[in-house]
Amino acid sequence: MAVYTDITEDELIRFLAAYEVGSLTSYKGIAEGVENSNFLLHTTRGAYILTLYEKRVNADDLPFFLGLMHHLAQRGLSCPLPLPRADGKLLGTLSGRPAAVISFLEGMWLRKPEAQHCREVGRALALMHQASEGFRLKRPNALSVEGWRPLWRNSEARADEVQAGLKDEIATELAFLEEHWPRALPEGVIHADLFPDNVFFLGDRLSGLIDFYFACNDFLAYDIAICLNSWCFEKDGSYNITKGMALLSGYESVRNLTAEEVEALPLLARGSALRFFLTRLYDWLTTPPGALVVKKDPLEYLTKIRFHRAIVSSAEYGLRREEASA
Amino acid sequence: MAVYTDITEDELIRFLAAYEVGSLTSYKGIAEGVENSNFLLHTTRGAYILTLYEKRVNADDLPFFLGLMHHLAQRGLSCPLPLPRADGKLLGTLSGRPAAVISFLEGMWLRKPEAQHCREVGRALALMHQASEGFRLKRPNALSVEGWRPLWRNSEARADEVQAGLKDEIATELAFLEEHWPRALPEGVIHADLFPDNVFFLGDRLSGLIDFYFACNDFLAYDIAICLNSWCFEKDGSYNITKGMALLSGYESVRNLTAEEVEALPLLARGSALRFFLTRLYDWLTTPPGALVVKKDPLEYLTKIRFHRAIVSSAEYGLRREEASA
Repeated sequence: MAVYTDITEDELIRFLAAYEVGSLTSYKGIAEGVENSNFLLHTTRGAYILTLYEKRVNADDLPFFLGLMHHLAQRGLSCPLPLPRADGKLLGTLSGRPAAVISFLEGMWLRKPEAQHCREVGRALALMHQASEGFRLKRPNALSVEGWRPLWRNSEARADEVQAGLKDEIATELAFLEEHWPRALPEGVIHADLFPDNVFFLGDRLSGLIDFYFACNDFLAYDIAICLNSWCFEKDGSYNITKGMALLSGYESVRNLTAEEVEALPLLARGSALRFFLTRLYDWLTTPPGALVVKKDPLEYLTKIRFHRAIVSSAEYGLRREEASA
Repeated sequence: MAVYTDITEDELIRFLAAYEVGSLTSYKGIAEGVENSNFLLHTTRGAYILTLYEKRVNADDLPFFLGLMHHLAQRGLSCPLPLPRADGKLLGTLSGRPAAVISFLEGMWLRKPEAQHCREVGRALALMHQASEGFRLKRPNALSVEGWRPLWRNSEARADEVQAGLKDEIATELAFLEEHWPRALPEGVIHADLFPDNVFFLGDRLSGLIDFYFACNDFLAYDIAICLNSWCFEKDGSYNITKGMALLSGYESVRNLTAEEVEALPLLARGSALRFFLTRLYDWLTTPPGALVVKKDPLEYLTKIRFHRAIVSSAEYGLRREEASA
């Protein structure tokens, strides 16, 4: 939940004059996204999202994010389309912040997704990977294996405050992943944060993907691993293999995983679970009580790390192969 | 800013089945209102507001508030219209809370209103007072003169923490107002909270009034006093008589004030300034730091109390009369 910046009607109308969006009839701060201020605009032409990029987002990354959304939407992927200004640029300035006007995507995120939705998500993820081909800007993944140790250094000393023994367990896990992380797998642009709240549905039909503000270049299968973690576990920490099967077969209905990706999947899943564990741990230890942010429990991801550590082959995620997969 | 309750798509769709609103296509928690959870819905028929009434609102008052909005909208006042359910009721239950679906009013509240807008507000307030005639439910004003001493008792002991001397000054003010408060003035249903964020404009045209959750029966002129306090002072604490003149003449373009109301206005203005001072003081002293609420400075209203105390006649507010007014 977040609306950090309020804006006046006057400055908004002046800002919108550079866009072909008709006349403004209302704007409401919406409780969505924790990195930026978002407003839902109504105009005489329809609905739009206005995003003001706050300090947590690096302004140098904005051309990558907005350019990617534009690239994907042009290639037929259902995702928000940043509107160009009169000067052709996708980014303007409002209330001293970089700001963009983005098409409004109808749809709702599912608080309780089922297997059929996981299949849709797998398919949409593969379509996104395909559609991103040819996008020329690059952005390395700051939250992949090289980024974990710096993150860990910030929390290490206090980790046992959250749970006794955490410091040793994570140190061992991190060292293992650094040593065994894959060197060569198919790469491309990944979403890197395709949690349920970033996927919209209308009924059971997936209507679009949103929030590309973690997108970057990395192993495509790492994106699948993130989705397995965020879509296929139940609230009690158990892995739902029916959902996993649906997600993976949905993905493979568009693009087949290579043998190397199949083999690497358990490791990628461990790594992506560690990545979310580390950022949540950091937020947990540093967010002051009562701040305008809902703190997410890092231990949810500790459970997932442990689950993946015990995995023997990708078949246990629900990946089906004619022959044994690993 | 507030969204206290999250809701799932499933429960929302089930809830909406009792309304004639078409199919849900999106819903967003909006950062509006501090008492309730509000969502902006899009459906195949248009836009609506969904309000979930949280604990701070007394559920027994909801029939008054919703009935009033319905009554006013039926009489042509531009305000949100609560939609009836299939059983004819205006109130349902969602996520364990009383909930209503309300028509969406296009328009924006003005962060920097000017005199012309004050005139529109005065006129709309008088139209609301007229339109509320014939509304049969009653709700006494818990925040008029009888309500101030109980409020004050909760803050009195700590008042000097906010400013030295505050305790004595407010005690004297309160005693004076209790003794001199008018006994008989024209009464009716008042809005009681018509601050700029509760009045929408499209361009310079007033498009509607919202947030009737403080509405009650009281002196009509008390509502005018609240508007003088909330619309006609500048940020530096000075009173803008051009705005006052506009607001009062806008009101009188619909209904003329009686001689008794004119005479009572300075006292009503003092009282209404004290009312907002007291609730802000209480919130100031009791809201924990970092809570999900923006604390408003009570001292803004101390300045206003002092201003009104020095007023000799209503002419100083900008009220024009053929003869001297008091």
